[in-house]
Amino acid sequence: MTESEAGRPGANIRVAVDAMGGDYAPHVVVEGALEAARTQPVDILLVGDREAVEAEIARAGGGSPSVKVVPSEGKIVEEEHPVQALRHKPKASVVVGTQLLKQGQADALVSMGSTGAAMAAGALLLGTLGGLERPCIGGPFLGLAPKTVLVDMGSNVDCRAPLLLGFAAMGCAFSRTLLDIQNPRVGLLSVGSEEAKGNRQVHDAYQMFKESNLNFVGNVEGMDFFTDKADVIVCDGFVGNILLKYTEGLGAATAGYLKTALDGKVPSDALESLVSQVWEVSNLGKKMGGPLFGVNGTIVVGHGASDSEGVAGAIDTARRCVEMKLVESFREELSALRSEELLARQS
Amino acid sequence: MTESEAGRPGANIRVAVDAMGGDYAPHVVVEGALEAARTQPVDILLVGDREAVEAEIARAGGGSPSVKVVPSEGKIVEEEHPVQALRHKPKASVVVGTQLLKQGQADALVSMGSTGAAMAAGALLLGTLGGLERPCIGGPFLGLAPKTVLVDMGSNVDCRAPLLLGFAAMGCAFSRTLLDIQNPRVGLLSVGSEEAKGNRQVHDAYQMFKESNLNFVGNVEGMDFFTDKADVIVCDGFVGNILLKYTEGLGAATAGYLKTALDGKVPSDALESLVSQVWEVSNLGKKMGGPLFGVNGTIVVGHGASDSEGVAGAIDTARRCVEMKLVESFREELSALRSEELLARQS
Repeated sequence: MTESEAGRPGANIRVAVDAMGGDYAPHVVVEGALEAARTQPVDILLVGDREAVEAEIARAGGGSPSVKVVPSEGKIVEEEHPVQALRHKPKASVVVGTQLLKQGQADALVSMGSTGAAMAAGALLLGTLGGLERPCIGGPFLGLAPKTVLVDMGSNVDCRAPLLLGFAAMGCAFSRTLLDIQNPRVGLLSVGSEEAKGNRQVHDAYQMFKESNLNFVGNVEGMDFFTDKADVIVCDGFVGNILLKYTEGLGAATAGYLKTALDGKVPSDALESLVSQVWEVSNLGKKMGGPLFGVNGTIVVGHGASDSEGVAGAIDTARRCVEMKLVESFREELSALRSEELLARQS
Repeated sequence: MTESEAGRPGANIRVAVDAMGGDYAPHVVVEGALEAARTQPVDILLVGDREAVEAEIARAGGGSPSVKVVPSEGKIVEEEHPVQALRHKPKASVVVGTQLLKQGQADALVSMGSTGAAMAAGALLLGTLGGLERPCIGGPFLGLAPKTVLVDMGSNVDCRAPLLLGFAAMGCAFSRTLLDIQNPRVGLLSVGSEEAKGNRQVHDAYQMFKESNLNFVGNVEGMDFFTDKADVIVCDGFVGNILLKYTEGLGAATAGYLKTALDGKVPSDALESLVSQVWEVSNLGKKMGGPLFGVNGTIVVGHGASDSEGVAGAIDTARRCVEMKLVESFREELSALRSEELLARQS
């Protein structure tokens, strides 16, 4: 275990924040980071174009001893091909932030920018754990099922069975470490509970999950996010990303629907509070972000549209991941996969 | 065009109803069918075990001249392999019902039973349209987006691009014929709007959709069910089925959440009505069923858990499909696909 993984006893956890990433960067990112520095036991390294970041700090009423600026040049945006962009922009904020992690100058990195860029920077600069082909993103994504971990939400498409098995193992590590579930039940998301139901990818994964040491409960279906059949629900990032964005859209639409349906029937402040609750339970990711699963360091990616509260929430998530030694837990879980050759078969 | 497709001028539309299919069959199916016979311009052929069906009719206070019983033996259940079950149970209700269609004794078939069995019976006994490899299920599935057609919801996994193109064309036929949208916009469900985003299946389909004569608007994402970017959203049945069941689960969970959150804050009758509305907008399929796309006859499959109102709703859907000549519209749309060879490439 490295020093940064363990945290440094007695000292604040040091979180590098990609100040240039996100739809409202650097403004809301700096605002959220300053808020976190005020309210959480963290030191913040704001990584970004120095002038822009310092202007935002000044606008917010000035910094504090626990906030430092680390200069970078430019940023990688959603539309760019992540790996190519890393090559062409070696001083981009997310790259510099990841290097702070690598050099042990930060314990965690938080970015609201391109998820692909954060994943690529993490995988290429820090390396993946246990021979994983690619990292992924997991965690609870739905306020109505706050202890159910969905993995992958990180848009890993066309996943082979061994990769899904690795995702599942890390989902269990997350569930055990951050949600305190001792023996997480793992379900494969499919179109029927029977073993024969599903596409080729699910069929292959089913066999491999069955042979593994995971607490595999078989296939689960779309409604099983609400039936407590599994603690960790595994799908590829194609399905996961669609579910995530669909849920956000549906939450916003439902909130709008309630606003109209209840107008005049409920006191307006109660209605406001209800509507914002409905929005929040369907937009958990905007409140707390989610850690990358499978890179050799703590990187939390937040939603691009996060507000400053969301940025502070993601910083809090990063702090908790470091304190709970999530990366170490991923590593243990991956190496405990019974069939040692399973992950080797992935590529 | 056959007589049954056009309907018979001046006469009631004849709907065969699979009395044995569904979670609460034959009880609620018979109840729903009798209700339809009372309130809609339809003649009903109740296909099922004679004794059981007649007992249900008697229990409901007796039949009417527009309701006849057609005897069958046994039923095919969800757990069976559809094609094998068709072979082993040639007198099962869904088989006899499909034969009524084939023989021109019914204009449409409605079943709340195994979707796979209805699809297999339709494909094998009636044949598919335009050389389609497999039929699918489409239609609006979400009350908050009542004019957006999702196709496929019928669990067709691992779909090749030409099959998805056929699904898309039929989605357009449905949109034009039943939802009165003259030039439906077609979107491919993916993880990003850019052409490069998606899995292999989406990449292949993207190229083929682009070359076709469809009004293709490119990739759409999970939130685009609510952004009016496309009238027809195309995915394979793996993703479609997961979305459908997830939506049902989420709707029920949201209804429960509101019930608790608003208890005592809203008059109880208003709350009841709101909660049931929320449930209904997320369970559209339980109210009206959906037609099979791509078989040579009108077959409407309803949700297994439908109540009698849902059965009557599915019968109404079947009647409308016959009146609007949906099957003819599917046939025209498939044959109008610009690249004639596209569908031939599917298998």
